[in-house]
Amino acid sequence: MTADAPLTDTRWQTLTTKIMDACAALACYTEVEGETNRPFLCPTTHQVHEYLTHWADELGMTTYEDAAGNLRSRLAGATPDARTLYLGSHLDTVPNAGAYDGILGVVMGYAMLEAVKGEALPYAVEVVGFSEEEGVRYGVPFIGSRALVGTVDDMLELCDAAGQSVRDAITEYGLNVEEMAEAQYKGKALGYFEIHAEQGPVLQDQGASLGVVDGIAGQNRLMLNFVGQASHAGTTPMNLRRDALAAAARFAVAAEDLARATPGLVATVGVMQALPGAMNVIPGEANCTLDIRHARDEVRLGALKALLETAEAASAERGVTVTVTPKMEEKATPMSGDFKALLHRAAEAEELPHPELVSGAGHDAMIMAAHMPSAMLFVRSPNALSHHPDEMVLPEDVTDALRVSVRFLHLLAEQNV
Amino acid sequence: MTADAPLTDTRWQTLTTKIMDACAALACYTEVEGETNRPFLCPTTHQVHEYLTHWADELGMTTYEDAAGNLRSRLAGATPDARTLYLGSHLDTVPNAGAYDGILGVVMGYAMLEAVKGEALPYAVEVVGFSEEEGVRYGVPFIGSRALVGTVDDMLELCDAAGQSVRDAITEYGLNVEEMAEAQYKGKALGYFEIHAEQGPVLQDQGASLGVVDGIAGQNRLMLNFVGQASHAGTTPMNLRRDALAAAARFAVAAEDLARATPGLVATVGVMQALPGAMNVIPGEANCTLDIRHARDEVRLGALKALLETAEAASAERGVTVTVTPKMEEKATPMSGDFKALLHRAAEAEELPHPELVSGAGHDAMIMAAHMPSAMLFVRSPNALSHHPDEMVLPEDVTDALRVSVRFLHLLAEQNV
Repeated sequence: MTADAPLTDTRWQTLTTKIMDACAALACYTEVEGETNRPFLCPTTHQVHEYLTHWADELGMTTYEDAAGNLRSRLAGATPDARTLYLGSHLDTVPNAGAYDGILGVVMGYAMLEAVKGEALPYAVEVVGFSEEEGVRYGVPFIGSRALVGTVDDMLELCDAAGQSVRDAITEYGLNVEEMAEAQYKGKALGYFEIHAEQGPVLQDQGASLGVVDGIAGQNRLMLNFVGQASHAGTTPMNLRRDALAAAARFAVAAEDLARATPGLVATVGVMQALPGAMNVIPGEANCTLDIRHARDEVRLGALKALLETAEAASAERGVTVTVTPKMEEKATPMSGDFKALLHRAAEAEELPHPELVSGAGHDAMIMAAHMPSAMLFVRSPNALSHHPDEMVLPEDVTDALRVSVRFLHLLAEQNV
Repeated sequence: MTADAPLTDTRWQTLTTKIMDACAALACYTEVEGETNRPFLCPTTHQVHEYLTHWADELGMTTYEDAAGNLRSRLAGATPDARTLYLGSHLDTVPNAGAYDGILGVVMGYAMLEAVKGEALPYAVEVVGFSEEEGVRYGVPFIGSRALVGTVDDMLELCDAAGQSVRDAITEYGLNVEEMAEAQYKGKALGYFEIHAEQGPVLQDQGASLGVVDGIAGQNRLMLNFVGQASHAGTTPMNLRRDALAAAARFAVAAEDLARATPGLVATVGVMQALPGAMNVIPGEANCTLDIRHARDEVRLGALKALLETAEAASAERGVTVTVTPKMEEKATPMSGDFKALLHRAAEAEELPHPELVSGAGHDAMIMAAHMPSAMLFVRSPNALSHHPDEMVLPEDVTDALRVSVRFLHLLAEQNV
């Protein structure tokens, strides 16, 4: 292999065009006419797999669908016992999705291998198009990546809105659920590398085409129910009120204040409702939510504790009670330090800015990181649009990300000769 | 007449029982089986009027329904040109109402005259049962009292939910709308006196059976629409957010803070809603309301100005725009200083606590006060319940209020011999 085999500018542009064209083409495979909508194991997934298998065939890869519906294209390593580098992301979409969320990372996996075609990499490579990451159909995400790491069994009996289990959906799609154990990766894994659109405004704000993901934030989501006493807005003096919304509003303000004062913390009150909800009635009840995330669990949990104490204190002061219902908790997932260092070196060599940033959203890399060194490269999201049909990535940013990723393959090869 | 004609305790108790019984009996005249529900000019109003007319007849009063459906029972004064004291409140109710809101003041008007029966008052007295105060049927209140002061003409073409105008409703009820001018009070008015349940917790909190109303608070009601930018709760750092709810929550907190710091001010955010309203989406829009009241217009308007400036500042800091839509503005209505002084003297003579308090709710006295000296006496509302079937007044409090009111009649008679 040649670690620095230079591609011409024309070749990079051709590959970029192939990536953009593939994303545009795959966005047309949809269950809902007029939008892009591909839930887990929907019939049009077959067409997506067919498209990508054709590309994999050109690259001399062996491709199959595993029992979880993941598309897996394998390129053998230099030796039979070579470790495997997994490249990929997911192929399912949210309703009325854009063309890049997930799909970009899979397509770029193939494009990376096209860029190094003919070179003898010392490791095997598997491009994976995960079948399920968005959590749309079964309410829980990562069915695809959990199958690959062997932790999917307890999800098979989940039912979708139509009452169909994951198990039955797999059968209906045409796969054999009894072969699920075969979906689990075997042998030594070198690691996992995922390219994904940022889905946020950080890179745009910093003027960078790409960024190295430091880690995936841990998060808590919870609901707060404040109960006081509804009463007349005109006849009840301030000192005799038990205003549930007043307590909830203090909580929302405290959440924003604390997050602003804590580097890297994000805290969001996305739902807020006052009941009974009349202009001239003091709210006897208020409901709100908190979504809080940070790359370091101790920071997140400390902030959560402080905010819940604020909710308690603001309630107690007003004769209001507050009940907290946890809805989700995810620990933070740090990315591999070695892989991050290689990505920074690769971007440095390409003379591109390479800020490090935290992923506030979950990704398949969260699941993979528990089993192998994992890393993510984010591509700038213009206007931070995501989960929206106008979601986009700039072709020149895709070129940058491809150059860095290919250099990452080379650097990794140097380490693994 | 005898200004201090003492009634025996038994006599006060008998009158109190008569008042409580009347309120209980009138609560049974309803348009909705199982609850008390008497909108303006509903058919059961006839039965209410019949009940009270019977009582007025016993007192030697002349009773008629005016063209606005007000029940008017007149007791002549010592001379034909004697001024008239108006006593009363309203006989319509909110849906699923209690037995006392409004009705108590009318019933107590008759009871006051029964207490002084046989005495020669120097002024004429008219007990008025206003036909409409709650604003339920036509969305605007005070149709009854506006007819009495001659400002009802522009309300006649209003339509209810069924499309029937006030004019047609009057005809259907059996009255002649062409006689509306006759409803207007004629000659010299001595003043207006209204007894009403407090509908708030102030007297209960102070351990007083009754209170003298200082004035009726002026009020503004308005809606605020905050518009920012919805975005991902995980991927959008705090410094790049345009969180509409964060701005609205600051506004709600500021409203409570300012009202707590300003004696007599009440400010309520009764409605609060975040849009799109998902746990993991930063609200791009938030809607809330403000209801703000004070007995002095300059205090209310100053506070309103400060709060709207806070809303603007909190929005501007977050890249959010705020649009304010006024929904209602009412000026404050001070009660007559002379009448208040007489009420305090009367309560003092009865050896009862007589705190002064502001009415945060509107009453017919607001309309009357623009045309004649007006005063209100509030009776304690246990648990501050009102506009609710469990609304109550304590018989012993009613006795106190009756004693003070009868003494008020006597003091007024001394002044008007």
